[in-house]
Amino acid sequence: MNEFELIEKYFNWGRGHAVDLSVGDDCAIIKVNPNTQMVTSVDTLIAGVHFPVNTSASDIAYKALAVNLSDLAAMGAIPKHFTLALTLPEINEPWLDEFSASLKQLSEEYSINLVGGDTTKGALSITINVMGEVEQGKALLRSSAQVGDLIFVSNTMGDPAYAWQQIQQGNVPSLFYLDRLNRPTPQVLLGQQLLGIANACIDISDGLEQDLSHILKHSNVGATINLADIPLSDEMITYIENTHDWCTVLAGGDDYELCFTVPVESLKDLEAVKNKTNIQLTQIGVVTKSGGLSRLGYFDQECKSYQHF
Amino acid sequence: MNEFELIEKYFNWGRGHAVDLSVGDDCAIIKVNPNTQMVTSVDTLIAGVHFPVNTSASDIAYKALAVNLSDLAAMGAIPKHFTLALTLPEINEPWLDEFSASLKQLSEEYSINLVGGDTTKGALSITINVMGEVEQGKALLRSSAQVGDLIFVSNTMGDPAYAWQQIQQGNVPSLFYLDRLNRPTPQVLLGQQLLGIANACIDISDGLEQDLSHILKHSNVGATINLADIPLSDEMITYIENTHDWCTVLAGGDDYELCFTVPVESLKDLEAVKNKTNIQLTQIGVVTKSGGLSRLGYFDQECKSYQHF
Repeated sequence: MNEFELIEKYFNWGRGHAVDLSVGDDCAIIKVNPNTQMVTSVDTLIAGVHFPVNTSASDIAYKALAVNLSDLAAMGAIPKHFTLALTLPEINEPWLDEFSASLKQLSEEYSINLVGGDTTKGALSITINVMGEVEQGKALLRSSAQVGDLIFVSNTMGDPAYAWQQIQQGNVPSLFYLDRLNRPTPQVLLGQQLLGIANACIDISDGLEQDLSHILKHSNVGATINLADIPLSDEMITYIENTHDWCTVLAGGDDYELCFTVPVESLKDLEAVKNKTNIQLTQIGVVTKSGGLSRLGYFDQECKSYQHF
Repeated sequence: MNEFELIEKYFNWGRGHAVDLSVGDDCAIIKVNPNTQMVTSVDTLIAGVHFPVNTSASDIAYKALAVNLSDLAAMGAIPKHFTLALTLPEINEPWLDEFSASLKQLSEEYSINLVGGDTTKGALSITINVMGEVEQGKALLRSSAQVGDLIFVSNTMGDPAYAWQQIQQGNVPSLFYLDRLNRPTPQVLLGQQLLGIANACIDISDGLEQDLSHILKHSNVGATINLADIPLSDEMITYIENTHDWCTVLAGGDDYELCFTVPVESLKDLEAVKNKTNIQLTQIGVVTKSGGLSRLGYFDQECKSYQHF
């Protein structure tokens, strides 16, 4: 099978209503709606770094697209198109079957079209570039947090890092934790619901404290968070009680939940979002005038967030 | 140096006039002009596959962007934005200095903005996703060649493949051939000039015959090309005379020249383009009703184009 046959067989399902020309020319041609801005982001996943080496093709495809959708979610954008640059050590048809089926399924769930790609031979690596749309001037930014805003996160913190830790220690995490690691839910609908409510938003990929710090730095403000308020899953509560290892929660990364700041006057609107989406949204702190990021609670160790190099 | 410092130091120069928000948020935000379509394409370069392993950082950066610009050229599009997914085995600051300076220089030359990216640790690999703009409905496609069209190529064929061959045989190619391999000129201006003149267009990345065959397949037509008409550089003429190895010319790949078809009634306009751009444009054949791709000339061997797997 050559590259063209591979694309034809596994990745020629991307054409959608908003695409004028998809996989098969030098470029894909994309319609852009008037009065919108296009947003774009790229993320690479590498075996052993972004997913355990024995992860299934299905989970790898899911995660590669999900982490990119998560970036669109953090802008409040509507997913539209993506390209796939896939580097493979060999052509393994069962693997490709599973990979492309999973990618197709998630792309359909979020109505995002595969519009182009490239396949090359080398160490397994998946780079996805997503494109989305947001109404002119409405995108959720990192740079708009205001002093007095309340800081929220979606769902629970630290589960994927805890799962990864378990795997590295030779344990098999329960399905809940495996799913939190391999199948993060991109909070696309939540992001869109937060437009006009949140002042600033980011997705938590590198760890709660590091990502919240990006908001603080770009907005030129500080924050205080309360450890007791950070939402935790049941197993994590026990884990923290036993180990006091808050770093897994604060710096573990891979959460792909949204962290956002909301002015007090929008709390009622946020309550409505909560009821509508049925997503757990928890206030964990408040935006302050300055002083970086400080914690309330009995843990003053500095956590090292994940560094690629 | 962590990932954020790396981006700040080497890749934070991308913000341009058409970008509302660049490197530093979850996504870049892009303005799209009304009455245009966005075109997008992605290409990955891997050491030893797409460039010789000892290629300089400067040449690697150049080629990574140039081959993507070449895809925009083949659509007649105006380059606008790109994202960079860079996988590096280690942080090597002199290498990054050279890489980013070269990337910046080429991006300025073609007015294309670096709007986002991702850096990860792994085997050296560069994935660039370009975005460009083309007037609504005007893009040059592969699928619009018409019977009777004349087939043209820009500049000369086979030089990069010849250079690569020389390197693999332990010879040092002359500067002309090294440049043809490492510093292909993306024919962006030519592509734009061909709007309204060419019926179909493709950039030659995988070899003249294979890429021309894409036009034929997508347009549902055939073609005859005349070997004697294929434009060759001086050293290639001697090489062909000595070896009769036409495959280097027909299937060598990596040319990044444009191959396009022009109806007879537009030949005058093409002549004007030739005079305006001063680019060598040579007719090598004609589009026929059917029969696939046939050659005139004393060489009937089937050439194997480059296959990634």
